[in-house]
Amino acid sequence: MAQVIRDVAEMQATAAQIRASGQRIGVVPTMGFLHEGHLSLIRLARQHSDVVITTIFVNPAQFGPSEDFNRYPRDLDRDKDLAFDAGSNYVFAPDTGAMYPDGYTTYVNVERMTTSLEGKSRPGHFRGVATIVAKLFNITRPHCAVFGQKDAQQVIVVRQMVRDLNFDIEIIVAPTVRERDGLAMSSRNSYLTLAQRKEATVLYRSLAMAEDGIRSGERESKQIVRKMTDLIASSSGIIDYISVADGTTLDEVKVCEPGRPILISLAVRFGATRLIDNIALTV
Amino acid sequence: MAQVIRDVAEMQATAAQIRASGQRIGVVPTMGFLHEGHLSLIRLARQHSDVVITTIFVNPAQFGPSEDFNRYPRDLDRDKDLAFDAGSNYVFAPDTGAMYPDGYTTYVNVERMTTSLEGKSRPGHFRGVATIVAKLFNITRPHCAVFGQKDAQQVIVVRQMVRDLNFDIEIIVAPTVRERDGLAMSSRNSYLTLAQRKEATVLYRSLAMAEDGIRSGERESKQIVRKMTDLIASSSGIIDYISVADGTTLDEVKVCEPGRPILISLAVRFGATRLIDNIALTV
Repeated sequence: MAQVIRDVAEMQATAAQIRASGQRIGVVPTMGFLHEGHLSLIRLARQHSDVVITTIFVNPAQFGPSEDFNRYPRDLDRDKDLAFDAGSNYVFAPDTGAMYPDGYTTYVNVERMTTSLEGKSRPGHFRGVATIVAKLFNITRPHCAVFGQKDAQQVIVVRQMVRDLNFDIEIIVAPTVRERDGLAMSSRNSYLTLAQRKEATVLYRSLAMAEDGIRSGERESKQIVRKMTDLIASSSGIIDYISVADGTTLDEVKVCEPGRPILISLAVRFGATRLIDNIALTV
Repeated sequence: MAQVIRDVAEMQATAAQIRASGQRIGVVPTMGFLHEGHLSLIRLARQHSDVVITTIFVNPAQFGPSEDFNRYPRDLDRDKDLAFDAGSNYVFAPDTGAMYPDGYTTYVNVERMTTSLEGKSRPGHFRGVATIVAKLFNITRPHCAVFGQKDAQQVIVVRQMVRDLNFDIEIIVAPTVRERDGLAMSSRNSYLTLAQRKEATVLYRSLAMAEDGIRSGERESKQIVRKMTDLIASSSGIIDYISVADGTTLDEVKVCEPGRPILISLAVRFGATRLIDNIALTV
């Protein structure tokens, strides 16, 4: 009862059978090269469903032309064993041509909240994300889907799409899994040199400092961003953005008012490797 | 067992129950003000499914700012009786605010084939169509959906979206229903004055002439369009477009080659009223 499916029609028929049998389906969409963060999503999906489908697909539509689609790490053999060990019943790993056949022309756009942060730095990224998630939802027909808080804006975009397009799917968000030194787990960490790997902890350290600052009474976003910027400047990391935004709309906030959900997020480059991280909190 | 549902969540729960009971759902998406054309779609859906859901929703997203959204004819009381008499089990008639709540931002775009013909004359129209159809599919969860050949480009766009986004739904196309004098049935015919109504037969007469011409050996699109243009010039109708296109891709064709599916379509204005019609044929 652990099976890799590569064919779209077979996955769709299998999902329909599972549904017809009255079982609850949980899906975990991933781009593979699984780490402990992904496995935590699979375990969470396990708790919320009878049958877990992990999808593994490096989605070209969410990479920009100058981004790392071609060198993005892939290892299906290892991934499937990890996914099954973590409790996944199926691994769905389609070919690119099966997902985007010749003459493919349909895209899902979530407007507004996709133009800031990751969407600003990576134009078209969330069009690709929303499109592939809509496709995977229609193929795997889940009752619930699990995403990681690590990709905070992705969570917000997927929630908006699910609400707007009336997908009858519960979105479950799993906390970010970190290395012992605080670095958020990411398949892209494998790109880092040993020296970069050590410096990369500055993302989490700056977020922890911001959280401490807010706990100590800091409310001005400008001050929070300035302190984070100073800390990161002590590393070789190049800041792409640091943002203090509303946790629901992603509108930037000037003052962290009590009761308002806040998302502090950042993207930093080490050489050619771009890392992101975030914390969500309510003052 | 004939019921009007206005609430999105209730429709979704009802559809889920029908599916769980093993019955096949057919949906007929309409903008209401039902005529014999719509009723033929409902009867066809009846033949292909156990439970028919007719949706009635005048979709603002598919109207341009200067179009007839506000004056589009509406009569739900009459519509529901007609739909039930034709064999519909449910009429789903949501409010605009339920379908596009505050903060709505997600749209489905089918690219390329939506930039010609109706898409060219009505920018954004097919974005609105694809979006509402995706929403209605997710709410009514049909096994099959019936659309009319009258809106030929809409059929092609919906088929493309269903294929691209992996909706597991069979698209069934019903032939255009015509008045005795050949005018394609349309809710917009109700806008016509008596004099315009008489002249409006020129759309179908020009299409029938084109078909006759092709049957007699005509292959040049230019000649076909010229003759149709001449005929329509004898009326007060203002031509928006006349097109001879590939029946699958909607690319314009210069020569109607044997074996190739052809769509001849046109849009003509009588006063403020814009009418469309088409014939599909293979030489």
